[in-house]
Amino acid sequence: MKYVNDSFTIKTSKRLEIIDITNYVESMVRKSGIKEGVLIVFEPHTTAAITINENDPELFEDLLHIYTKIAPIEQKYQHNLKYAGVPGEQNAHAHILSSLIKPSVIIPITNGGIQLGTWQRVLFVEMDGPRTRKVYIKVIGE
Amino acid sequence: MKYVNDSFTIKTSKRLEIIDITNYVESMVRKSGIKEGVLIVFEPHTTAAITINENDPELFEDLLHIYTKIAPIEQKYQHNLKYAGVPGEQNAHAHILSSLIKPSVIIPITNGGIQLGTWQRVLFVEMDGPRTRKVYIKVIGE
Amino acid sequence: MKYVNDSFTIKTSKRLEIIDITNYVESMVRKSGIKEGVLIVFEPHTTAAITINENDPELFEDLLHIYTKIAPIEQKYQHNLKYAGVPGEQNAHAHILSSLIKPSVIIPITNGGIQLGTWQRVLFVEMDGPRTRKVYIKVIGE
Repeated sequence: MKYVNDSFTIKTSKRLEIIDITNYVESMVRKSGIKEGVLIVFEPHTTAAITINENDPELFEDLLHIYTKIAPIEQKYQHNLKYAGVPGEQNAHAHILSSLIKPSVIIPITNGGIQLGTWQRVLFVEMDGPRTRKVYIKVIGE
Repeated sequence: MKYVNDSFTIKTSKRLEIIDITNYVESMVRKSGIKEGVLIVFEPHTTAAITINENDPELFEDLLHIYTKIAPIEQKYQHNLKYAGVPGEQNAHAHILSSLIKPSVIIPITNGGIQLGTWQRVLFVEMDGPRTRKVYIKVIGE
Repeated sequence: MKYVNDSFTIKTSKRLEIIDITNYVESMVRKSGIKEGVLIVFEPHTTAAITINENDPELFEDLLHIYTKIAPIEQKYQHNLKYAGVPGEQNAHAHILSSLIKPSVIIPITNGGIQLGTWQRVLFVEMDGPRTRKVYIKVIGE
């Protein structure tokens, strides 16, 4: 039974952006040497999220379009009013979406690798960029 | 410490459909012999999801109604436009909802069984059927 | 390798309410003595949810406002019609939101504590209160 902790940093370049982090994640699982167990991908921010879906730039636009239809950037939010004039805090939409999509995914490690489906990729969802963001990886198993 | 991997296949029969998979999942946990630990239910598709809620056919209609209010099937999506004419790819709504509901649940195994509440059932959410779908089960514990 | 199970009860006071349960959760992790592993927070109800975000009362209002924009309390739901006249069952909105936000979070335990980011707090989301609610904690590790 081993616990391997790792992390990496990504720089996002837009207010809203989806970044495929599967390659980072897979290389850390390989480096851990764990062949059977689970992988947890966790981001420690409240205005971002982690999810799983297909890597398709056009689909990424659709995702972000619907996300901001759910919680529009420009809308009267109590959080934004409280912090009126503080530019970095006009981000209630991002908090709300983070609370819905949530900051982590758990993926089985089976037969020596992470058990993603053919089209599944691990996606970092930036909703209040551009920022420097941290992603934690935890691999548990043997 | 044991790791038990299992899987099953379900055939969905409609474009949008919710299927209660709790019985499959519980029988696999029993078969695993694990009495203390965790269960991970993970589906490897990008147009489906796994969640937990009550098994009520009327509620399932309500869930699917609100899901497709969030991401309507018929709408101008970049993903669908890119794949215009490819019938199997007119499914951006399903990708978006899969990214929100997500492909897995984790459930504690305590006192010899999965620790679901009285009304909680494990639900497979089909959003681009009918298709044959796979569900992976991983039981970790002792 | 240890498995520590614990639970606590909270009394919610409104129909819709967000309660920061991080202090309960952290004290149970400390009590478990586990310094490396994972924490699972799981609520066994179908009209509530667990998520992670900032503790800000104004933001909590924004979250609940958008949640009930997604699934309005007053709307024609099949579930509510079936149970017409049963006051405790006019809660399809809560089931739908529970199926989206989901009943659990998993958090890494690293360097002796739960690895939440600076602003991240564990939040119990009540969507059909006031009720007495249960929350299960499972700590796995060593």
